Amino acid sequence: MAVTMPELRRNIATGEWVVLAAERAKRPEEFSRRAAAPDLPARMGNCPFCPGNESMTPPTLAQTVGENGWRVRVVNNAFGAFSATGDLSPRGNEYLRSMDAVGYHEVIIQTPAHDIPEPLLSPEQMRKIVLMYRDRHRFMECDPRVEIVIPFKNHGLMAGTSLVHPHAQIAGVPIVPAHLIHRIEEPLHYYREQRSCVFCVMLAEELKGGERVVEENDAFVAFIPYAAATPFEAWIMPREHRASFGAIDDGELHLFAALLGSVLRRLYCGLQNPDYNYMIRSAPREHRDAPFLHWYAKIIPRLTNVAGFEMGTGMFINTARPEESAAFLRNVKGLAAD
Amino acid sequence: MAVTMPELRRNIATGEWVVLAAERAKRPEEFSRRAAAPDLPARMGNCPFCPGNESMTPPTLAQTVGENGWRVRVVNNAFGAFSATGDLSPRGNEYLRSMDAVGYHEVIIQTPAHDIPEPLLSPEQMRKIVLMYRDRHRFMECDPRVEIVIPFKNHGLMAGTSLVHPHAQIAGVPIVPAHLIHRIEEPLHYYREQRSCVFCVMLAEELKGGERVVEENDAFVAFIPYAAATPFEAWIMPREHRASFGAIDDGELHLFAALLGSVLRRLYCGLQNPDYNYMIRSAPREHRDAPFLHWYAKIIPRLTNVAGFEMGTGMFINTARPEESAAFLRNVKGLAAD
Repeated sequence: MAVTMPELRRNIATGEWVVLAAERAKRPEEFSRRAAAPDLPARMGNCPFCPGNESMTPPTLAQTVGENGWRVRVVNNAFGAFSATGDLSPRGNEYLRSMDAVGYHEVIIQTPAHDIPEPLLSPEQMRKIVLMYRDRHRFMECDPRVEIVIPFKNHGLMAGTSLVHPHAQIAGVPIVPAHLIHRIEEPLHYYREQRSCVFCVMLAEELKGGERVVEENDAFVAFIPYAAATPFEAWIMPREHRASFGAIDDGELHLFAALLGSVLRRLYCGLQNPDYNYMIRSAPREHRDAPFLHWYAKIIPRLTNVAGFEMGTGMFINTARPEESAAFLRNVKGLAAD
Repeated sequence: MAVTMPELRRNIATGEWVVLAAERAKRPEEFSRRAAAPDLPARMGNCPFCPGNESMTPPTLAQTVGENGWRVRVVNNAFGAFSATGDLSPRGNEYLRSMDAVGYHEVIIQTPAHDIPEPLLSPEQMRKIVLMYRDRHRFMECDPRVEIVIPFKNHGLMAGTSLVHPHAQIAGVPIVPAHLIHRIEEPLHYYREQRSCVFCVMLAEELKGGERVVEENDAFVAFIPYAAATPFEAWIMPREHRASFGAIDDGELHLFAALLGSVLRRLYCGLQNPDYNYMIRSAPREHRDAPFLHWYAKIIPRLTNVAGFEMGTGMFINTARPEESAAFLRNVKGLAAD
């Protein structure tokens, strides 16, 4: 599809406009990185996340046990941003406002195998991982000091991790960040005017044309949104309206794990193991059952660097057309994990 | 100053809370990168920004001429995100909303010398550059289709540029990005309640203690804000309340150029030529003379990578204490450019 000039597209759920750059647009293959994956041993003596090295981490908080020991293991983040004890009373004057960073920050070691990157884990293992996400989500939700819970994954140096052994994280945060407060306003406004969830509308619209859908199953749809801010940014959204990931049932959980694994494999095979982040975004405590918020997972391959324009305006320049990216991911060959 | 647990600090102007990580806090020197600066020629035959290669860029839009040719030169960004012609009428249905990306996107070639990075440019050259920022700012402001103007700089690969020849950019954007709309709300709310500009309050508070001030002159103050989101993030704020950079007068302009150059040199010498971005943030058109907004420049050294937590929550984890960073920058030796 020929584009003659840069286009602005509006994200209905955030109100954000994105620049879809024309002149600098790249074809999907051009985002692929050419570096070969490093050759890793199955176990490393100095890796704190490898079996046998459990004493190198804080104590086990939860684990899934299989025939040969743990399969998924959860520990506190040794360099955590939040701590379970402390005082949430605001201190200081109006300007020098502070409080203790009370909350949770845990590491979810996704597999005992040092050398299997997350996209190549078996569907069975992905189910165990996602089940653990839900368990820890629910645990953190029980603490009334926690306002929002967010499971997230950093894969690769560009994505902010230097530890190779596959691991994700989950944080329980004692305030609703300003950024997320604003992300609530647009859907609330939409709901008041239209009496429907803007994310349900988004999903219906994406399914209608289908050209940005990557893959779907009975409970979830993976797509590149119409106004994607970054190249190959993929959303996985439940068909059923639900504001919080913590409320997901077992049947849905399996279908979510399957689709998450499949999208990660499509990115891995199609773009040659790109660095990526994903995060599972739920409504904060005060809106946990809201009819206007809808949980979803967002996967962001780290293919470009944010620069001054984005930092200054909060507006993104996307150099990949969502329709082309989705078609490319639909057609990726070699999805061996199933 | 010993920290026993992570601390949350609130930015009075944005309402954002930042985590000041305790366990993972680093000393200032640890952010320094050890790589030697590349040895560059003064001129490169294939560099589109070097003198003699003017035909490799779009035509000159503006320039400052010295004894031996141009000193600062402005051209359209050949891969621009915005184009001066097009139609700003919204198209599509409610979901598939788009319009032409009408606006401006220019490159400001900061010097004819290929090999002198911005922090090492002479004070005289910095004055020419900043004067050009103001000229192009005022030019873009004259177009009623432009809602916001933002000069910005990307220095280094991590900061989003691959072209070594020193250059900045300036964009004129036809909408107010959602992110900036939210950044207006908090100061407006503050003004309604307190009848004063929250940025003026911030400046007064930072000057009161002074422990986060890096350098000041008669018209500007450079400081690391109390609730800085990233390590060594420095703000340069005019003492006089003014909502838009475009309104700066000649006397202030010289003092701004001097302080900007000096802070960049402190970062260059202290942290060994880190990649960085800066941007000059002004009020959008509709609030150009607002008593509640205040222009400022923000310099962000790219010392860490944004990861899943930040992307998911919009909340930042800062591993450098602002007080220590400011003291470190105050004491940097070897500021040779004056």
